[in-house]
Amino acid sequence: MSIIEHSEQLISQALLHPRSIALVGVSDDPGKTGGRPLQFLRRSRFAGKIYPINPNRDQVQGEQAWPSLSALPEVPEHVFILSSTDTVLPAVRECAELGVKQVTILATGFSESGEEGCQRERELRDFAQASGVRILGPSSLGVVNPHNGLVLTANAAFAEPDLPKGNLFVASHSGSMIGALVSRGKARGVGFAGLVSVGSEADLCVGEICQATLDDPTIAGYVLFLESLRHGDKLRAFAAEAARRGKPVIAYKLGRSNAAAEMAATHTGALAGEDDIADAFLKDLGVVRVEMLETLFEALPLAKRMPAPDSRAKRVGVVATTGGGAAMVVDQLGIRNVTVQPLSEATQRKLKEAQIPGSAGRVLDLTLAGTKYEVMKKALQIMLEAPEFDLVVAVVGSSARLQPELAVKPILEFTGADKPLAVMLVPDAPEALGTLTRAGIPCFRTPETCADAISSVFARRKLSTAAAAGSPQLAQAQALSEAQAYDVLDRLQVPHADYAIFPLNGQIPTLPFEYPVVAKLCSAEIPHKTEVGGVVLNIQDPAQLSRAFETLRTNLRQKAPQLVCEHVLVQPQLQGMAEVLIGYRVDPDAGPIVMLAAGGVWAEVLRDRSIRLAPVSVEGAREMIEEIRILKTVSGLRGKPKGDLEALAHAISKLSMLAQRPELKLREAEVNPMLVLAEGQGVLAVDALVMQSA
Amino acid sequence: MSIIEHSEQLISQALLHPRSIALVGVSDDPGKTGGRPLQFLRRSRFAGKIYPINPNRDQVQGEQAWPSLSALPEVPEHVFILSSTDTVLPAVRECAELGVKQVTILATGFSESGEEGCQRERELRDFAQASGVRILGPSSLGVVNPHNGLVLTANAAFAEPDLPKGNLFVASHSGSMIGALVSRGKARGVGFAGLVSVGSEADLCVGEICQATLDDPTIAGYVLFLESLRHGDKLRAFAAEAARRGKPVIAYKLGRSNAAAEMAATHTGALAGEDDIADAFLKDLGVVRVEMLETLFEALPLAKRMPAPDSRAKRVGVVATTGGGAAMVVDQLGIRNVTVQPLSEATQRKLKEAQIPGSAGRVLDLTLAGTKYEVMKKALQIMLEAPEFDLVVAVVGSSARLQPELAVKPILEFTGADKPLAVMLVPDAPEALGTLTRAGIPCFRTPETCADAISSVFARRKLSTAAAAGSPQLAQAQALSEAQAYDVLDRLQVPHADYAIFPLNGQIPTLPFEYPVVAKLCSAEIPHKTEVGGVVLNIQDPAQLSRAFETLRTNLRQKAPQLVCEHVLVQPQLQGMAEVLIGYRVDPDAGPIVMLAAGGVWAEVLRDRSIRLAPVSVEGAREMIEEIRILKTVSGLRGKPKGDLEALAHAISKLSMLAQRPELKLREAEVNPMLVLAEGQGVLAVDALVMQSA
Repeated sequence: MSIIEHSEQLISQALLHPRSIALVGVSDDPGKTGGRPLQFLRRSRFAGKIYPINPNRDQVQGEQAWPSLSALPEVPEHVFILSSTDTVLPAVRECAELGVKQVTILATGFSESGEEGCQRERELRDFAQASGVRILGPSSLGVVNPHNGLVLTANAAFAEPDLPKGNLFVASHSGSMIGALVSRGKARGVGFAGLVSVGSEADLCVGEICQATLDDPTIAGYVLFLESLRHGDKLRAFAAEAARRGKPVIAYKLGRSNAAAEMAATHTGALAGEDDIADAFLKDLGVVRVEMLETLFEALPLAKRMPAPDSRAKRVGVVATTGGGAAMVVDQLGIRNVTVQPLSEATQRKLKEAQIPGSAGRVLDLTLAGTKYEVMKKALQIMLEAPEFDLVVAVVGSSARLQPELAVKPILEFTGADKPLAVMLVPDAPEALGTLTRAGIPCFRTPETCADAISSVFARRKLSTAAAAGSPQLAQAQALSEAQAYDVLDRLQVPHADYAIFPLNGQIPTLPFEYPVVAKLCSAEIPHKTEVGGVVLNIQDPAQLSRAFETLRTNLRQKAPQLVCEHVLVQPQLQGMAEVLIGYRVDPDAGPIVMLAAGGVWAEVLRDRSIRLAPVSVEGAREMIEEIRILKTVSGLRGKPKGDLEALAHAISKLSMLAQRPELKLREAEVNPMLVLAEGQGVLAVDALVMQSA
Repeated sequence: MSIIEHSEQLISQALLHPRSIALVGVSDDPGKTGGRPLQFLRRSRFAGKIYPINPNRDQVQGEQAWPSLSALPEVPEHVFILSSTDTVLPAVRECAELGVKQVTILATGFSESGEEGCQRERELRDFAQASGVRILGPSSLGVVNPHNGLVLTANAAFAEPDLPKGNLFVASHSGSMIGALVSRGKARGVGFAGLVSVGSEADLCVGEICQATLDDPTIAGYVLFLESLRHGDKLRAFAAEAARRGKPVIAYKLGRSNAAAEMAATHTGALAGEDDIADAFLKDLGVVRVEMLETLFEALPLAKRMPAPDSRAKRVGVVATTGGGAAMVVDQLGIRNVTVQPLSEATQRKLKEAQIPGSAGRVLDLTLAGTKYEVMKKALQIMLEAPEFDLVVAVVGSSARLQPELAVKPILEFTGADKPLAVMLVPDAPEALGTLTRAGIPCFRTPETCADAISSVFARRKLSTAAAAGSPQLAQAQALSEAQAYDVLDRLQVPHADYAIFPLNGQIPTLPFEYPVVAKLCSAEIPHKTEVGGVVLNIQDPAQLSRAFETLRTNLRQKAPQLVCEHVLVQPQLQGMAEVLIGYRVDPDAGPIVMLAAGGVWAEVLRDRSIRLAPVSVEGAREMIEEIRILKTVSGLRGKPKGDLEALAHAISKLSMLAQRPELKLREAEVNPMLVLAEGQGVLAVDALVMQSA
């Protein structure tokens, strides 16, 4: 057993299966936040030892209380500190001295509370690292394991009797959401194998906690409620291993809107990563990022049934006992860019041979046949056998509520089918939903969650095996000059325009290329040239070039006298069919990423961009190009001329390979603009900015 | 009483309150489609007279059966024809002869079934119009009125016992959906005052049926499930009157995805997909168009509480007992472009004075205070009194399920508040939802429906009183020449570029304006000039102009020898800061509409457009401009130069006034492109296409 595996086992054991628990600062009032864990643990008949600790009382909630951790007859495996903020650090120190392995901290007042709180959290983190004690929180509402009665939480929602047991493991940035998920799961027939409120992740984080539970056979999949992307390296390691073991990870992440991103930042004290970086990160790691709350616990069976991410296996067939219901599902899928595949002629022929009356166009609508067991069964069989579908969705109307023997029963008989079969029930039909859920059949109570689950499962991507495994910690970086940046592009084989370098104060040179040209100040000290008037466009002849040099000298003197710049870079003035931005950078949370965006003002106005973890293959780069709306204008639409998008895909992939060149120590490289020339003529970078670490 | 009012009363009476019903072709088997209505009516103890009609049997389901309608002892008020397609027309004729007022037709095989079916439906419609008998259907599953036990439907879902009585009236294109809505409403504590499956609307349509029920005091609001926009004039009349009476109309319309997927041509008709026009139509009529199925029956209380559409009254305040729950709501609102208003300093001061502990940034998060009755009550009072909010949303955490007395009870005490208060419950809490719903408080079970309802209620617009009331039926239209089109623009005071007209075969003229210029073939027979090479750009001098005329003559001869064209239109070649398309047309369903769209290739790629019913005020046109993303590039963003968007707003409004100029007989008018010049310099049409009816 490796050290890592051993450490994971310890985390899992102490967090979810502790043999003994101490509750520091437990309240005598079971209704108070600090009194709940004892009440809940007793009510759920937790079998381990529980030590209430309260220096001011002999008894707490009718039980013997102990004055301190050191007074206990044994070292407890898990200590839940319920006392106030200022008592936390001394209590954690005492735990470490006694050899406690796992401490959970309820108190707030750490990184979310200004500079003082941040300092407190740094101390806590440093102490944890130095001492080896593992900390959950601060701001953690605790841990729940429905299978063994471990209701070690201050969340009032766990007064709930009969916690639903099941196979989902929840890790949540929001402590209140673990309660909401339990009640909603219970109503929906979905149960849990564990729920952890991770708090501000000063030590243990979502990725590490989940990773530690991967060997747990009761856990079939993971549900993450994320406020922001934090500890990306741990999350990445966990997601990769979960994918390898076929345990799906479903995530709901806040911050899609700008307002919410801002709130996440102030709420958790975390620097909110931009949502689209987090989105690329999750999808590239094969995580199913859902958009709706209820999909979060409805999506697991579908994610389990769908094969590994495959950009081609996305053809959905629909069979329905209600036309209106089918139309809603088709519509909702369409909004999410999932196209329902029409029935092939062969499939239509088979249906006819089986004497199934029904209209078969884009969907197989059985309304006319009436809802009958035999019809539904045969129709499902033919649809599931049809090679044109990767997934079949059955939309069941009113019979699902009143006569499940008609259309729900035959669905249950295809539990073992090779092809996944998902179900959307149009009426309110909680019993049928429960039956289907227990049978492991993906089923949904609204057309929106149905479409959300399908599109989110389809949106997962397979991580390139070449992808960098961690987030290199790079020191402060400095800009290179434009000429040095082109050297980097040369090494990566990313094409750029010709250029020539001349002294700023020298003679007006003879150019190695034709006019018109552009002249730009060239210095590592001037990464943003336009801001100092460092670019002159449209230079038609030597006389104009001479004036341009003069202008550059004047601007430099007037606008940036403190900066050193000795050279001018001259370049042919070129025009492309389209202009894009290609950027590479090492994100502190997500690691190396590559971005393609519309150039110029469009990037700002339209937010027309695509992001992936770096490096990307040429195939991956082609998918990115597909996502950029302005590039549709040069994609050959309506016979309009085509740009060289294939060359662009190669350039994106080449630039992204920086992720595998740590020796270059580059933290950021941006080509803006990259000109897309006509098909066959390639692409050309006409400006570039590269940031290098010392 | 006017004739119209009288006719409405008859429809409402015979449809929803018939004193006697005949069931033609009723089946002896109560489980069969044709047997259900008799079974359901008996089970629900419908008090009126029921006459089963079946020529082949003396008894049906144990009751006396009558051989024919004419054999009945009275003329039934409502006849439900359950027999096969080919028997429908004879049965309807018999009804008319006997003086039956209302016939409902179950059979399919009409307009949805090819040319033969369409012919059958035309006969039916013509007969209805000639005879005065009112028809619901064909393809109608029937009518249900839970208040009087009228379960006159073949929809199997109505085997449901205890139909939920309430104040919602449902009209649905999909017959199966009325069943799904009943079961979902029941589960959600929402009841109904009537449900109508309108079928293919050969005679009675959604608008007319709903209009006929407006006097019914049991109906508080309308729910429409629409497959497409049909009979727009009737829908418009109903929606206007419903708005006047303060009875909200909520609609779910299929077809959003088709519009999104459709690749458009560059003229008004094709560019605006059917769904875009329907969307503008519904919103302009003040209809709440929701995007999610469950919002359809959750949105009424909010729509009732919100004042008439007001583009300024859209400021949402949020108070929450759970940070994670609040963040979800804020996020979902933000995605739908509803921004949550931060608390003002005055409000924060009041909260502090009231000693309410909690963080108050963008939302008032009471997590730290713990969930307490007094805190929630005081917080709600301060939020509802704060002038910076038009609507307050309370997000309630786990306590809503287990301890409603803490945070749900105080909400119930603000039922009568001046300002609307909406509620989102984070846990599964059906009882609290039921209590709130019964109290008429807008409440939602997911963050998505909560945000959908709010944004949909906000998206309603107040219809300009000047808006044309009907859909003028215009005959085939013919194009005018570009010069004639400019005359139309002159009459409307829509600015266009200078131009001069010269004979195609004459001498090269002296121009009244400077070079460079554009020369275009000018003929009513050539509406699409570029297709025949009828435009020459970039003409710099008289020699080039001469060559341009030669080119135009050659192209005309070679590419369109059959067309007559005697003139050339010459125009200064101008460039704007942005190019847009402004289109006006009379849509067969929606009536006159005006569209603003991004010009050129952007319109196709980005589907960047805004539609309104015509005419629009200048204020309405400003809102349209706000919706066009590419116009953000000339809106002064980041200190970039501004275009004359105010002049554009005036031009849009002026063109839209065509809706009030029926004497011009114009069916379509399109300016493409309209150049947007720099601020203060106006806008200029540089091409226009106008279609005039004979």
